Amino acid sequence: MQPMSWFTEAHAASGSSIGFRTERQLHAEKTQFQNIEIYQTTDWGNLMVIDGCIMLTSRDNFFYHEMMSHPALFTHAAPKRVVVIGGGDCGTLREVLRHKAVEQAVQVEIDERVTRLAEQYFPELCEANNDPRAQLLFDDGIKYMADCPPGSVDVVIVDSTDPVGPAEGLFNAKFYASCLRALRPGGILVQQSESPIAHLELIKSMRDEMRKAGFGALRTLPFPQPCYPTGWWSCTMARKGADLAEPEFMRTALEK
Amino acid sequence: MQPMSWFTEAHAASGSSIGFRTERQLHAEKTQFQNIEIYQTTDWGNLMVIDGCIMLTSRDNFFYHEMMSHPALFTHAAPKRVVVIGGGDCGTLREVLRHKAVEQAVQVEIDERVTRLAEQYFPELCEANNDPRAQLLFDDGIKYMADCPPGSVDVVIVDSTDPVGPAEGLFNAKFYASCLRALRPGGILVQQSESPIAHLELIKSMRDEMRKAGFGALRTLPFPQPCYPTGWWSCTMARKGADLAEPEFMRTALEK
Repeated sequence: MQPMSWFTEAHAASGSSIGFRTERQLHAEKTQFQNIEIYQTTDWGNLMVIDGCIMLTSRDNFFYHEMMSHPALFTHAAPKRVVVIGGGDCGTLREVLRHKAVEQAVQVEIDERVTRLAEQYFPELCEANNDPRAQLLFDDGIKYMADCPPGSVDVVIVDSTDPVGPAEGLFNAKFYASCLRALRPGGILVQQSESPIAHLELIKSMRDEMRKAGFGALRTLPFPQPCYPTGWWSCTMARKGADLAEPEFMRTALEK
Repeated sequence: MQPMSWFTEAHAASGSSIGFRTERQLHAEKTQFQNIEIYQTTDWGNLMVIDGCIMLTSRDNFFYHEMMSHPALFTHAAPKRVVVIGGGDCGTLREVLRHKAVEQAVQVEIDERVTRLAEQYFPELCEANNDPRAQLLFDDGIKYMADCPPGSVDVVIVDSTDPVGPAEGLFNAKFYASCLRALRPGGILVQQSESPIAHLELIKSMRDEMRKAGFGALRTLPFPQPCYPTGWWSCTMARKGADLAEPEFMRTALEK
């Protein structure tokens, strides 16, 4: 065992950093798409890092996975068919499948190695992978949504890395138009939308692109997330042909 | 000017760290009570550090100062006389004085150097220091509350450092009993209560001590705070002889 040290992500764009005390590195590999590392921490369970960016810890991932799934699924009257784009750690899929109304949940992760490592190092997040309603695909989410039959999906959850590298094409009007077409009326798109204090311009741009694609109602939900830059994160919901209310303080910040 | 580097606080108790990219150290001194450092950061304005712990940045202190003042002052029907214990950076005092109902706001900070350095490096937080309703004392807050005439205060705000060193005596039933006696009926005590994810035991203990001292209604409010350990912080309100509602998720976590 290596001596105790820290894994620190220095987030250049915001000039802030977050770190966790580690016991040792459990795994490191270069996949076809990215570099993945797994660490055992002293206080946060296991830690997954992709291309130097902290993805999740065992202890605090519940904030993210619950906020990416439950607000959308509780808002929708009958979320029968759900698609998760990305989400390779399977934590979002697990939360989605807690909803009895869900008849099928498809996860489209580009990098199968993320899921295989999650099965090994975050088994609790993968406990619903054998649910008969779950379908795990390892494919390009952009292409999957473009090819989706129109009006076949109730909720699309975009659980991706930051808008650089493989996830870049998930943050523009072309992709959102595919999602809109794939959704049934009243369907909801929800996407992780970075930090409300460090990435307000990106959130504005995502919302502009969602509107450009034809989504009417938008809602950005902030939540705590200790392992992500600034410790404050958000997801943005967009709905097809139905309303969503907007917390006043986010509306004010975004309309400045 | 020194080369660009980072100031990082490694928080041993939670096994996590937070850092900010700095341009240079602006000031460092050992006062009668503690070590104070001020840094200029690249993205967060100025940064104050006391005994190695990050106290505030220009950019993100608004979360803390607004949450320490407005929920209590908007809950109280007529907050005429307010006492701030600690709060030497004067940011809480500024928010308190935004309330027109306030006739007098007394700040009792043990270390005058904190306030003098705030005047120099965080002048925006000190812009209400010359308000005729403001009284700045440099004295022991524990003694001040013990000597306070009974039923003379509407809101007590305990804006202190962590419960070690000079602030230790601000987290027990004896101190809370002084606050209760000093408050008029319907009066509110509000105190910073650390991270809901890293310090749940401390929050429980504070609440137990507040109840022991005779406070009935309690309310713990979580809020984002990028510069404090885990990026998620809280304050706890306690009221004398009147009710306060409790967010369900905090009640559930605390009663486990």
